[in-house]
Amino acid sequence: MDAAQETVNLQWRSACPISSGLDLLGDKWSLLLIRDLFQHGTRTYSEFSDSPEHISTNILAARLRLLSAAGLIERTSPDRSARNNAYRLTERGQALRPVLEAMALWSQAHLKGVHPGMVDIF
Amino acid sequence: MDAAQETVNLQWRSACPISSGLDLLGDKWSLLLIRDLFQHGTRTYSEFSDSPEHISTNILAARLRLLSAAGLIERTSPDRSARNNAYRLTERGQALRPVLEAMALWSQAHLKGVHPGMVDIF
Repeated sequence: MDAAQETVNLQWRSACPISSGLDLLGDKWSLLLIRDLFQHGTRTYSEFSDSPEHISTNILAARLRLLSAAGLIERTSPDRSARNNAYRLTERGQALRPVLEAMALWSQAHLKGVHPGMVDIF
Repeated sequence: MDAAQETVNLQWRSACPISSGLDLLGDKWSLLLIRDLFQHGTRTYSEFSDSPEHISTNILAARLRLLSAAGLIERTSPDRSARNNAYRLTERGQALRPVLEAMALWSQAHLKGVHPGMVDIF
């Protein structure tokens, strides 16, 4: 991932792929934005904010920048400003489907109070 | 997960299983400790610290408490203190294998400078 690693200036902690994946995606929000894009195709700033987890606008802006720089998402109208735009998954972002699916299946089986019906993206 | 949710006092941000999974595991370290246990079977404090990502001792202690309370790992000798002990995966922790596997495969395909050989746990 030349572009992503250089633009985002990510330093992998080690050569382990699990570790590198977490360097980029190991937080409580990034994969939720990816989830929203799987569910809805495209999302604007305000639509992301309306998701039930209520991401704050500063975290949302930072994560959209990071995921864009890493080539996982892209603006649907690149000419417009970040705020007046919708985002969609790139092919690299869509390739995260098995990660989300595995996480959802594990949570449904092992965490209490989790709703099976929410994972209608698979 | 009655025990986990009550002991750890985790509040799910929503009923979405991806979100709940990230409430528990959405950070840069927890899944690395799980990885170490998959690779080595058991790990002590100092063995965890020796992993190439160099987790700090305070983060290590906090994550071991959280993962224990959530029922993902357990001490091999429950009578001994946390520091003088080894940890192993429970069945619930072992069930995370597909999550680690999906993350590793994605990273190997999409991140530069990631070593395929490190994922010898699958």
